[in-house]
Amino acid sequence: MKKVGVAILGLGVVGGGTYKILTENAEFYKKNHGLDITVEGVLELNRERALSLGVEESKIASNIAEICSNSDIDIVVEVMGGIEPAKSFVLAALNSGKSVVTSNKELYCKFSHELEKVAKKNGCGLYYEATCVGGVPVIRALLDNLQGNKITSMMGIINGTTNYILTKMSDCGAPYGEVLKEAQKLGYAEANPTSDVDGFDAAYKLSILSSLSFHTKIPYTEIYREGIADVDPVDIQYGKRLGYAMKLLAIGKNGENGIEVRVHPAFIKSNHPLASVNDSFNAVYITGDSVDDVMLYGRGAGALPTGSAIVGDIIYCATHQGNNYSTFKNTEKADPSTKFIKNFESEYFLRLSVNDKAGVLSKLMSHFSKHGISISQVIQEKAENGQVPLIILTHSTFENDIKKTVDEINSASDVTKVLSVVRVIA
Amino acid sequence: MKKVGVAILGLGVVGGGTYKILTENAEFYKKNHGLDITVEGVLELNRERALSLGVEESKIASNIAEICSNSDIDIVVEVMGGIEPAKSFVLAALNSGKSVVTSNKELYCKFSHELEKVAKKNGCGLYYEATCVGGVPVIRALLDNLQGNKITSMMGIINGTTNYILTKMSDCGAPYGEVLKEAQKLGYAEANPTSDVDGFDAAYKLSILSSLSFHTKIPYTEIYREGIADVDPVDIQYGKRLGYAMKLLAIGKNGENGIEVRVHPAFIKSNHPLASVNDSFNAVYITGDSVDDVMLYGRGAGALPTGSAIVGDIIYCATHQGNNYSTFKNTEKADPSTKFIKNFESEYFLRLSVNDKAGVLSKLMSHFSKHGISISQVIQEKAENGQVPLIILTHSTFENDIKKTVDEINSASDVTKVLSVVRVIA
Repeated sequence: MKKVGVAILGLGVVGGGTYKILTENAEFYKKNHGLDITVEGVLELNRERALSLGVEESKIASNIAEICSNSDIDIVVEVMGGIEPAKSFVLAALNSGKSVVTSNKELYCKFSHELEKVAKKNGCGLYYEATCVGGVPVIRALLDNLQGNKITSMMGIINGTTNYILTKMSDCGAPYGEVLKEAQKLGYAEANPTSDVDGFDAAYKLSILSSLSFHTKIPYTEIYREGIADVDPVDIQYGKRLGYAMKLLAIGKNGENGIEVRVHPAFIKSNHPLASVNDSFNAVYITGDSVDDVMLYGRGAGALPTGSAIVGDIIYCATHQGNNYSTFKNTEKADPSTKFIKNFESEYFLRLSVNDKAGVLSKLMSHFSKHGISISQVIQEKAENGQVPLIILTHSTFENDIKKTVDEINSASDVTKVLSVVRVIA
Repeated sequence: MKKVGVAILGLGVVGGGTYKILTENAEFYKKNHGLDITVEGVLELNRERALSLGVEESKIASNIAEICSNSDIDIVVEVMGGIEPAKSFVLAALNSGKSVVTSNKELYCKFSHELEKVAKKNGCGLYYEATCVGGVPVIRALLDNLQGNKITSMMGIINGTTNYILTKMSDCGAPYGEVLKEAQKLGYAEANPTSDVDGFDAAYKLSILSSLSFHTKIPYTEIYREGIADVDPVDIQYGKRLGYAMKLLAIGKNGENGIEVRVHPAFIKSNHPLASVNDSFNAVYITGDSVDDVMLYGRGAGALPTGSAIVGDIIYCATHQGNNYSTFKNTEKADPSTKFIKNFESEYFLRLSVNDKAGVLSKLMSHFSKHGISISQVIQEKAENGQVPLIILTHSTFENDIKKTVDEINSASDVTKVLSVVRVIA
């Protein structure tokens, strides 16, 4: 029976889940995979936490050097999050000849080029399935299943916190701030929710997934990013009436004119498979030239689902030769020939409040036609206090033209305001 | 650049799709995978077909021996279907030291033990992602992603033909025979549709997927199988009113009392992710002890999606050391300790036609209570010609008890008939 010694750096939610899976299923792995996997070391400042999980006192290391010099350890699992000290610890592990399994999306997204270089130099494996979408098998699907495809598009709901908040806002019509507070109480959002609600977390993941999909490094700094803090529940309800669900989408497209990568709230048709991905569930919808459409769906976060991805990587590392290096040129920047598109093409939903007098609608429409924007649907509600709520859906148009149009409308005297602009995924 | 010579046995739908992908994307594989993949031989009785696809005359082999003795060929793709001559050809290829990629679910399901033994003896790879659910990455998800999980349940819509027929029956209320004919005209069903509509195809795939999931061979002969030929559109419409979709489900469960494996039409709640898998789309919904619920969705058949899985396996074979052998004991029979459950537990939908007179309902109910079956819902429609249409939904109960109850009801004088019995997935 092959012995596999594991060290876990950080016994937080994911580290604790990984420890639990490895210890509870140890006999199962012996029987079905011929692997005797044991946790030979943990690095956790909170010793009480480690002891309460059942870690033996002797397995609690005081520093990374103890982990690196322990010859019983083959694989180091980094689940600390953040850049430092995670990065130094991962480099130390690789430099001591240990393979690394990480769930750290920020670290892998920002420093994959550096980590992979050191891994290669030392002949070690570097595994990162757990960085994206928890237990959902998306990294390996891109590496080992869909690699015969030219992938043209990927769209994902890849952040559980924001999907939970948007689902609740849609279900009960409550405003963002109220639902965020509830989510924090229930543990679905962190005390400092910035990384999730402002789209950073989704952008890190999109950087990793789109680099694999498009075979060139997509730095997260190239990703257009807009969070959900400004989403108005009124728009969500209008969208529902029109047959759309509001989601924070991570979108990557690779077409003739270049690559576009963006994270923002958007309306998606309610019969699209992504529209029914609710609560803290996540999904990635991938389109390739031969596979057509594929969707991978499941729990995108949490102790055990993310632990599932980590343990999957540990078993893969222990049972496969070769080291799982990326299929993209793992550089710091994109291939110099890569063109990034910033003027996105999309349909748009606009909500306006218009003065209730003759000729206003005609003048309003002239702003759209001036910029070549074609209207697909108009809903005019009953006037209230002299103001008419108006919903306009456009055909496909360019971001820059919409911006110009909105600016013009907002400075025209006969229209009070464009209250919201939401991209609509056709 | 690594040279990879491929032979394709059979240039039917999937073989033709594979040929097209490999030739059209050849430059893409050179650039992104460092692989120079060329088709060095095809075995196809219809030479015209081969030539029309663009195969050079010199690459068309006359027999399997020519393929086996061609040292330019590293990987043999078997996409002929059926047992013979596919089996002999695969064994010949393995015995001549070539790795095999197959989409042949019947062959792999029935003879995986024999094929894998010969592959191992010759140190060759045996790859079969394309046997199940077309381009959807489900085999490798079980082998390389979810292998840390104790998988407790899998449910799948894994046959495109039957899902297309049931979707159309649901959309337009047409009877089975009529929709089947239309599906045959459109190429969604074969002239002899038995393998699809009677559930054989789904049972072969369930055998492969459940063997991987439950780590013991699940012979397809252990799978309870019921097709869709008797599905009545009236029941589908009643189901819709009650919030259910009718699907041909392949179900595998691994619990304390044993393993159950079955393929049959069933109602599934309309908010379950599988309920909105429509037309020829397929999906597998897997539940594991750590990953929780995962769904893998996409096109389960067709030239290019299945070709995507085959090309994925070719690239995997060319870029990975190790040979991808199964994680289950690949024997002909299940592990002797395996207990197969045949008396399934389920909720049930029954449609009855009852004589319209006093006391009938009470007598009817007594048949259910006699067998300890608890009723969750009753819908009584208006009587027509003295007959009352009646829908009964039960709480969870056992198959044997339902059968006894239905037999008793059908032999009682005051009830005309139990017209249909449909399992309901809770």
